[in-house]
Amino acid sequence: MGLLVVGSVALDTVETPFDKIDDALGGSATYISLASSYFTAPIKLVGVVGDDFPKEHIKMLEYHNISLDGLQIVEGAKTFRWGGKYHYDLNVRDTLFTHLNAFEHFNPIIPDEWRKSKYLLLGNIMPALQLKVLDQCTDLHFTVCDTMNLWIENTREDLLKVLKRVNILIINDSEARLLTNEPNLIKAAKLIRELGPKYLIIKKGEHGALLFGEDTMFSAPAYPLENIYDPTGAGDVFAGGFMGYLHKTADLSFDNLKRAVVYGSTMASFCVEKFSTKGLENLSNIEIYGRYLEFKELSKFEEE
Amino acid sequence: MGLLVVGSVALDTVETPFDKIDDALGGSATYISLASSYFTAPIKLVGVVGDDFPKEHIKMLEYHNISLDGLQIVEGAKTFRWGGKYHYDLNVRDTLFTHLNAFEHFNPIIPDEWRKSKYLLLGNIMPALQLKVLDQCTDLHFTVCDTMNLWIENTREDLLKVLKRVNILIINDSEARLLTNEPNLIKAAKLIRELGPKYLIIKKGEHGALLFGEDTMFSAPAYPLENIYDPTGAGDVFAGGFMGYLHKTADLSFDNLKRAVVYGSTMASFCVEKFSTKGLENLSNIEIYGRYLEFKELSKFEEE
Repeated sequence: MGLLVVGSVALDTVETPFDKIDDALGGSATYISLASSYFTAPIKLVGVVGDDFPKEHIKMLEYHNISLDGLQIVEGAKTFRWGGKYHYDLNVRDTLFTHLNAFEHFNPIIPDEWRKSKYLLLGNIMPALQLKVLDQCTDLHFTVCDTMNLWIENTREDLLKVLKRVNILIINDSEARLLTNEPNLIKAAKLIRELGPKYLIIKKGEHGALLFGEDTMFSAPAYPLENIYDPTGAGDVFAGGFMGYLHKTADLSFDNLKRAVVYGSTMASFCVEKFSTKGLENLSNIEIYGRYLEFKELSKFEEE
Repeated sequence: MGLLVVGSVALDTVETPFDKIDDALGGSATYISLASSYFTAPIKLVGVVGDDFPKEHIKMLEYHNISLDGLQIVEGAKTFRWGGKYHYDLNVRDTLFTHLNAFEHFNPIIPDEWRKSKYLLLGNIMPALQLKVLDQCTDLHFTVCDTMNLWIENTREDLLKVLKRVNILIINDSEARLLTNEPNLIKAAKLIRELGPKYLIIKKGEHGALLFGEDTMFSAPAYPLENIYDPTGAGDVFAGGFMGYLHKTADLSFDNLKRAVVYGSTMASFCVEKFSTKGLENLSNIEIYGRYLEFKELSKFEEE
C-alpha cells in the first residue's frame, strides 16, 4: 500500500556561515519522502507546487520511487519559497522571507486509490489541512504528525483536534514546552500524551531525541557531527526515516519504535552534512546501516 | 590511600519556585565528598570554614568516612556563604550574593600524609589554588578537575597551566564553548583535549553528558526526573560519583570511564531530588545500583 506523506514542497534560499544557496529543493514533504524512500516503497506524496517547479526535481523524486500522483501543479502560480539564515551557532536561525505562492490555497486532495493507506505521515502544515487529510483517509492504522510553534500559538484548537487523531506526535523541545507551558520535559511529555497521541517524540537537535510511551521512555543520542552545513529539513528527515523504518518492518512495538528513532536520527545526520536535499540523494544501504551501528556504539556501556 | 578532594565548603541560601532554605550545607568539596563516599573510603577533604560552621555538618561528613584533617577552621572568621535563586525553568539561576569570608584567603595545605595520594579531584576553585595543590602532590596517578566560567574569563592563563597537568576536565556545555570560542561541541572537545587533558566530560544538564577520548566518545542520557527541587551541587556530585567509582575500581579503561560517567549521573539525579545535601545523606547501595540499571535501560536498544 505504501506510505502516505502530506506536507510542503518548496524552493529554499538558505544562508549559513559556510555558503549560500538559492531556490534549492526543500519543503517538509520533500525531505520526509526522500528519507523514507530508503526504507520502503512507494512513497505517496501529496503537496502543491507552481508551474515553475524544476523538472529535474520531479525526476530525482521519481527516481527514489516517490509517486507524485498527489502533487498538484498549479498553472500560473509560483512554488512556495522560504528564505532563512543560520548564525555561527547553527542552533539559531532567522526566517528572511516566506512567500507562500501556490501553497497559500493548498487544499490537500488525496487521490482515491490512496485513501485506504494505513500509514500516514502528516508533515508540518496548518492543522486545518492536516484535519482535511485525516477526513479523507478511511483505513488509517498508524498516523504520525509534525507541527511547529506557529500552529501551537495561532491555531491551537485545530491542533488539539489533530492530536486526538494521531498515534505519534513529533516535536522539538521548545515546542513541547510551548504547547504545555511546562519547562520540565518529562512532565510536558505526560501532558502531551494526555492530549491524544499514545507516543511522543521530542527532538532536541544536538542533544538527540526522547521517545515517550506508557510509563516508559527511550533516550537516543545525537550523532557527533563536526561539520554541519545546513540544518534545514533535519526534523522532517528524522520523521521520514522513523516512519519509513516502521512502515518497512510493520512492527509497532516499543522496542521497534526505539530502533525507528535511531534510524530517524541516522537519516537526519546525513541530511545536515550537505546543503538542501543533497545529503539524501545518493545514500547506500550500507552507509545507513553503518551509521545506525555507530549510534549504537555511542550510547552502549557494559556491566563490569 | 583514599581519594583526595579539594574545594569549597559553604553555607548556601537557595530559593527555588518550591521552597527556600537558609545557610544549608553546600560547597564543591562537600558535594563531591558525599557523592564519592558511597563508592570508596576514606575521602580526604581539603577546604576551609569559619568557626561558625555547624558541628552537625562535621558529624554528618565524618559519618560518611570523610576525613576532615585537611579542613581548616579559621577562628574569628565566618564560613563562605553563597545565595542563589532558581527560576521556574530550573535551568536558569541568579547568584544573589557571594560572601567569601574565610574562603577569601584560602591557602590549600595538603596534610603531609596525604601528599602521596594517587587520585585527586580538584573541585571548582581558583586555578591558582588548584596549581598549589598540584605542586604539593608528589605521586599523582589520576587527576580530575572542574572549573567554571568565572575562571575561564578572568584567570585563563592559570587555568591553561592546570589543564596541562590533569587527566580529565569536567565542564558544562556553555563553559566548553566559552573556553574554545567554538559553538560545535564535538570540535570544542577536540580543542580542549589539545590543551592537555586526555579525557573530557561535557555535562549538559537535562540532556545528559558526553565523554570524549582519543577518537572515541560516549553519550550518557539524563535521568528523566519530573521533580527537581534544587539543582545546586549537581555538577560537583556528578564529579564525585564519577571519581568515587574510578577510585573504587582502579580501572582507567575507556569502558570503565563510561560506567563512571553513568554512576556520576546517577548520583547527580539523587542530589537534585532534595534541597542542599539532603538527597545524598541516606542512600543505600541498592538504590544507587537500581538507578544505575535504570540509566542503562533508558538508552538501550536491541537489533531486530
